[in-house]
Amino acid sequence: MFSTVKKLGFDFRPHVKTHKTVEGTLLELGDGTDFCTKRIVISTLAEAWNLLPLCKSGRIEDILFSMPVVQSRIDELASLSRNVKHLRLMVDNEEQLDSLIRYNEEQKYLPKWSLFVKINMGSDRAGFELESPELRKALKRILSSDSFELYGFYCHAGHSYGCHSIEEAEKVLLDEINSANSAAKIAREYSEFIEPVLSVGATPTAHAAYLYSSSQISEKVYGKIELHAGNFAFCDLQQVGTNCCKLEDVASFVLAEVVSAYPKRGKGPGEELINAGVLGLGRETGPIKGYGKVKFPAEYGKWIVGRVSQEHGVLTVDGDDTMIPVGTKVGIYPQHICIAAACYPWYYVVDGGDEVVDIWVPCRGW
Amino acid sequence: MFSTVKKLGFDFRPHVKTHKTVEGTLLELGDGTDFCTKRIVISTLAEAWNLLPLCKSGRIEDILFSMPVVQSRIDELASLSRNVKHLRLMVDNEEQLDSLIRYNEEQKYLPKWSLFVKINMGSDRAGFELESPELRKALKRILSSDSFELYGFYCHAGHSYGCHSIEEAEKVLLDEINSANSAAKIAREYSEFIEPVLSVGATPTAHAAYLYSSSQISEKVYGKIELHAGNFAFCDLQQVGTNCCKLEDVASFVLAEVVSAYPKRGKGPGEELINAGVLGLGRETGPIKGYGKVKFPAEYGKWIVGRVSQEHGVLTVDGDDTMIPVGTKVGIYPQHICIAAACYPWYYVVDGGDEVVDIWVPCRGW
Repeated sequence: MFSTVKKLGFDFRPHVKTHKTVEGTLLELGDGTDFCTKRIVISTLAEAWNLLPLCKSGRIEDILFSMPVVQSRIDELASLSRNVKHLRLMVDNEEQLDSLIRYNEEQKYLPKWSLFVKINMGSDRAGFELESPELRKALKRILSSDSFELYGFYCHAGHSYGCHSIEEAEKVLLDEINSANSAAKIAREYSEFIEPVLSVGATPTAHAAYLYSSSQISEKVYGKIELHAGNFAFCDLQQVGTNCCKLEDVASFVLAEVVSAYPKRGKGPGEELINAGVLGLGRETGPIKGYGKVKFPAEYGKWIVGRVSQEHGVLTVDGDDTMIPVGTKVGIYPQHICIAAACYPWYYVVDGGDEVVDIWVPCRGW
Repeated sequence: MFSTVKKLGFDFRPHVKTHKTVEGTLLELGDGTDFCTKRIVISTLAEAWNLLPLCKSGRIEDILFSMPVVQSRIDELASLSRNVKHLRLMVDNEEQLDSLIRYNEEQKYLPKWSLFVKINMGSDRAGFELESPELRKALKRILSSDSFELYGFYCHAGHSYGCHSIEEAEKVLLDEINSANSAAKIAREYSEFIEPVLSVGATPTAHAAYLYSSSQISEKVYGKIELHAGNFAFCDLQQVGTNCCKLEDVASFVLAEVVSAYPKRGKGPGEELINAGVLGLGRETGPIKGYGKVKFPAEYGKWIVGRVSQEHGVLTVDGDDTMIPVGTKVGIYPQHICIAAACYPWYYVVDGGDEVVDIWVPCRGW
């Protein structure tokens, strides 16, 4: 990721939501490499407070809270803004601007709120529609207000998780860049010299970024491109399913134990019970079958987590295979590590080996 | 639940996995009522350690660990057995007996392990098949060993969550009772006078238990019937979907906030964004559409959580309706409260009102 953004001259803003740790953040900021960024994205305010030491030391200078402004948290956002050099807020609705202005008036809060405007890339999760009067109205208001600074446009193509090849993901990356750039062009109608940050990315499109060349964008680019991604830190079956990374790139697994065996039950040689269910793996799905897949012992690599309930997982396998002995420790690739990682109060770091070399404690909650 | 088991003369063993709190356990044990039980089921050993004060005080005398014997946790189970009057282990595979015997020999552990034998009710999660040589072999071994005591048979019809009426759930309850009783009959072939506990139940079948009368069981019953259930403490949309309880019986909700609005997006009047996604609600489904459903404000009761990602939930509604104002606090009924509750480090207790009257802190982890 670092070599890609360096080659392309993009800025880089890792999203820390996947691991939520100080240690993981430092790695993503480039510590120990010749790359350095000081900006991050967070999905919860708890993540920011957890990283406060890095804000105090200056290692983090710029935090984007990726959830559009939550009215009841504005006071906490104001506190946070006093603890980090630059706090960026996400907006995708004019009522969020109303809330911020109301807060400023009531609380005599003077600094400008620095805003990313989110554009809906078709995932229909959040964001303004690019070709909408609502976007224009909000931009006009932001650009003419003393309460706001338009910092950038944010495009996250969540539907890129449905890509099946790196080429397909690259097309979605171009969509992200074109959308952010089109929004910037609209903004320039209201403020001639503005050069907003064009923040683009999702792990599949970020994986595809190395294919990008500026000649692929036909229009003039009206701002600096910044790549953001979160899941890439660990990867998982969903990412492997996009064909933008390989199974051996997945850095995370859940360690479970075979608790029982039911020979001849189900389709293959039988089924097995493990002590990891929804609360240890999540109930996430993807193009690769199952709620997880056996990583080791390698000879059982065809087994998947076919069913889950609260604490139980049922391993199943299609076709001929041998049963896994009861008591075997099995490593399971999760479908979606952002969810599976959130099940655990800490992570054991094995650094590719068998030995625990560190323990990372993530923050939890909001 | 208490009046049902009292009327039927059943014993009652609440499963604490749903709430994992001391306070919830005391309510389920009958404190403050004229009912009293001293036995529970746990899904994790952490739940037992969290309830240690109640074991020490004698309020809990009997704990069943519902996950079949996990080899690597036998030493911890031995520790636990020294801290509670009766610890019951679940077995559904002969290899678990091997592990226990091996442990006893290696560690010179002398007490008998008190065992529930689990019967597969067709959910294909765990359990011996009733008509199988494996069950007979295991029973023979348990009943002839100095290391084991056969305490009971455990039947949990997980597929009862798929019932659509109380009558259907009652039939499944009869299946549970008949299966446990058939297993007891088999056990008596190897030990003539044994009277094992017949532990049956799942929240839908427990809800249906009030319809039960002993005349519905044609065979002689070879042991004392004990009802177990977990989810009933809170209930959720999945339970409402069985038609064995009503929406107004659901005691739990997730409080979220409308963060953004997207008029005209989607099918109805538009869609809205809330700050609760998979990590606040889970990704559980059921016969009632959505990953959750609005409880309040009541006028928006038709809105459901149509889509979820890590921290985002998208509210959707079919047909005509009015948009929910941004900033509105919305109460969301979760699909599956055992999963949703596990997302939170504590619960606010409002006791049917608006005021927080208590805070319960559950245990987490395993």
